[in-house]
Amino acid sequence: MNKYTDATEEEINTAMQAAWDAFNVYRKYSLKRRADFMRSIAAEMEIIRNKVIPVAMEETHLPEPRLQSEFTRTIFQLNSYADYCEQGVWLDARIDTAIPARNPPKPDLRKTLVPLGPVVVFGASNFPFAYSTAGGDTACAFAAGCPVIVKAHPAHAETSELVAAAINKATKKSNLPTGIFTHIHGAGFETGKTLVMHPYTKAVGFTGSYTGGKALFDMANQRKEPIPVFAEMGSINPVYLLPEKLQQSAADIARQYAASVTLSVGQFCTNPGLIIGIDGDGLQQFITALGNEIKNIMPSPMLHPGIAKAFAVNRTKALTQSGVNTIAVASATAKENDGIPTIASATAAAFLNNHVLHQEVFGPYSIVIRCKDADEMQLIVQHIEGQLTSTVIGTGNDIELYKTLVDNIELTCGRLIFNGVPTGVEVCLSMQHGGPFPATTDARFTSVGADGIKRFARPVSYQNCPDIFLPEELKNENPLDIWRTVNNELTRDGVEV
Amino acid sequence: MNKYTDATEEEINTAMQAAWDAFNVYRKYSLKRRADFMRSIAAEMEIIRNKVIPVAMEETHLPEPRLQSEFTRTIFQLNSYADYCEQGVWLDARIDTAIPARNPPKPDLRKTLVPLGPVVVFGASNFPFAYSTAGGDTACAFAAGCPVIVKAHPAHAETSELVAAAINKATKKSNLPTGIFTHIHGAGFETGKTLVMHPYTKAVGFTGSYTGGKALFDMANQRKEPIPVFAEMGSINPVYLLPEKLQQSAADIARQYAASVTLSVGQFCTNPGLIIGIDGDGLQQFITALGNEIKNIMPSPMLHPGIAKAFAVNRTKALTQSGVNTIAVASATAKENDGIPTIASATAAAFLNNHVLHQEVFGPYSIVIRCKDADEMQLIVQHIEGQLTSTVIGTGNDIELYKTLVDNIELTCGRLIFNGVPTGVEVCLSMQHGGPFPATTDARFTSVGADGIKRFARPVSYQNCPDIFLPEELKNENPLDIWRTVNNELTRDGVEV
Repeated sequence: MNKYTDATEEEINTAMQAAWDAFNVYRKYSLKRRADFMRSIAAEMEIIRNKVIPVAMEETHLPEPRLQSEFTRTIFQLNSYADYCEQGVWLDARIDTAIPARNPPKPDLRKTLVPLGPVVVFGASNFPFAYSTAGGDTACAFAAGCPVIVKAHPAHAETSELVAAAINKATKKSNLPTGIFTHIHGAGFETGKTLVMHPYTKAVGFTGSYTGGKALFDMANQRKEPIPVFAEMGSINPVYLLPEKLQQSAADIARQYAASVTLSVGQFCTNPGLIIGIDGDGLQQFITALGNEIKNIMPSPMLHPGIAKAFAVNRTKALTQSGVNTIAVASATAKENDGIPTIASATAAAFLNNHVLHQEVFGPYSIVIRCKDADEMQLIVQHIEGQLTSTVIGTGNDIELYKTLVDNIELTCGRLIFNGVPTGVEVCLSMQHGGPFPATTDARFTSVGADGIKRFARPVSYQNCPDIFLPEELKNENPLDIWRTVNNELTRDGVEV
Repeated sequence: MNKYTDATEEEINTAMQAAWDAFNVYRKYSLKRRADFMRSIAAEMEIIRNKVIPVAMEETHLPEPRLQSEFTRTIFQLNSYADYCEQGVWLDARIDTAIPARNPPKPDLRKTLVPLGPVVVFGASNFPFAYSTAGGDTACAFAAGCPVIVKAHPAHAETSELVAAAINKATKKSNLPTGIFTHIHGAGFETGKTLVMHPYTKAVGFTGSYTGGKALFDMANQRKEPIPVFAEMGSINPVYLLPEKLQQSAADIARQYAASVTLSVGQFCTNPGLIIGIDGDGLQQFITALGNEIKNIMPSPMLHPGIAKAFAVNRTKALTQSGVNTIAVASATAKENDGIPTIASATAAAFLNNHVLHQEVFGPYSIVIRCKDADEMQLIVQHIEGQLTSTVIGTGNDIELYKTLVDNIELTCGRLIFNGVPTGVEVCLSMQHGGPFPATTDARFTSVGADGIKRFARPVSYQNCPDIFLPEELKNENPLDIWRTVNNELTRDGVEV
């Protein structure tokens, strides 16, 4: 599939030892030096933009505008997480000063976050830049103070090599030990396993399939020393269409969703694979309009033949389930490895009775579920698995009338969208890209936004530690000028002792 | 062992259904109502103080002053976590306002924390109040918005019943559904397993042995839907004695440690079970002084016969390992089920070669490790397992000279103490009571201090949500007057849109 050979166990051992040695240097770096390193990677990335994008186009079949914007997003992630890293508020610095006169005397206690150690990152096939080599997981790990070992996704190994070279340049310019970043190839299962099981590996970041993510999670828990795995394993991102809104704007919503379902050939973890409405004129209009839109959308090449084959198999499997009707298929002729835009439909009863219909069909596919009434829609919410996102399409009246339903939808997802589409994941502090299992392995963390840093750090308390030995963020005078919680109050003031 | 029978599977199913129903009510309560409920529990606890303490004395053999202070601590936890819950800063509320003119338009995104769901709490044998029925885990879960199902520790089932009754009174007075709190007995393994495997259980809090905690962690990961388990599984809490300080104050340190090793018959998870020094006059003086102190400390009854038996077995096992010398044993005659204060010693080489010596001997026991030199001490740090605490006893000069050693110690623990003892765990925001595996199952969380709330909550983002449907903490006008991060800046100001 690619010209790179799988890393041997010996090569992995060498890389992990180098990562561990680099960890002991890098973890003591100031926030500013970490941030500067990340900005330096961003700068090196900008330099290779015109060289790497054609390679990525070749490897992933994604069109240039999409890759350009993903590349820009990747650089934005590095720079904005660097800024957030430097601001230091994420350290949640805490200071409780001593009360020697209390009985028993209260000690001086101060708490900050320290990095976990080397982080293994698995590149995602559908985001060759933003969730791969220099992507969100890597940026978060560097901000936390952790070295990174990336296992390149074999479907875009050459793209990954070029990005890795940019990181290595930044490493050199920043005078960091080379072990801070290692790039490893491995088309087989064994490479990933060896990496996750290595005693120097202290955390894992993964974006990909349920099968892949769950296997890594299980391995990590079976280690002698279990380690945290944040695996983002996709989702079918239910969209709940409420009646009044549907009555008002069926055609507009259909147009919006035809675009969302087929964006990047449906290869987004936030693709709306499930649309749920209550039977009636509005829903019927929506289905007809959505079908008409989908027929006119061109089939396009998927990321790689493996994904195209999986789409074909899963699409056929879904369409041939009992009670499933095919509503519309793109009318243009598809070429080999193309994803064919497809809309199906089924009743709520069929959906509730058949787990196959709950499974992600990764690609430009969505199924519309027709409920008899609001109670059936409520039943679907109660039986839906954990999701990255859920979307409510409704007027103010709808949302008020269906308040309990919306409240229950909240239980099932990490992000709740009103009157929009789930595709498009903003990089900002308010973003939660995570969600209850099986969307991710730990709903308490996010992989988009600078809050993702917290996956790779842990608190340490210092008790009666002399000021001179405290980390900068905990010193009396607050030399970093960061927000800290001192004796239960947020402040940027120094501490008088 | 006690008069209560194990809960049947049917009883557990009923309790979990009630907890789920209560969750759907309680999770929508305001922070103030949650806090008031917690304060109401604290008030009901105060009422039963004089009734429950004699029962706890009978069940645990802990002396009255210790139980009185633990009881006071438990009430303090409930009240102080309630205050913190109400302040709302723990929600990490985030607001990024929309930029409609951007291409593509930036949506309005807002993030807060929502509760995970029903939490199963396993009472600890050594803290009948502070880490049992109305203890830290229960208080954190209530603050997070979660119902609690407590499995009483069989060794203090009657104490637990009385505390549960106080919680039930507070539930009634607060007009909460009874399912918000359920008290279950179960001496056998099956009760715990049924609770952890129940689909409505969404998180677990545990304080106890490695065997117990690891079994729950494994079960939870093998569920169809894995759930987070925070198990605090104890630790041997290494104490590193540095040379200059030892030369100056061997006798004082010995006195301090004789008290710490034997406090509450050594039945603390932060008991200093391992003391490490470099051979020389100072260390010899320390060992002699510590031995003399220990001889004069009275053997005392342990929590229950099971713990006393385990102590006897583990103590004998440790003392009979190759290279281990018994330094001192309490000279008074011990009664049945007494813990006998004991100090042993071994060389670093013996310690490094024998994993048995790394294992916790739960009770009034500590082993002093004699290193030939600083390199050997460094080697011990490299081979030590994850710990709740580590302690450095040293002068300013010592700590400067041994800076790398201290830096490496930090990698192994959750709390780093200077010139003190690890026993005594302050309840405050700067406390980290956690640490790398096997001290706990997830070093990123704490079980002491209000930060423990975060174990039981997860972020949810709301995208383009109408203000009227947003949770209070995310509404434009900031009606709760809490600290929020608005467009990357911490502020208590409202948002103008």
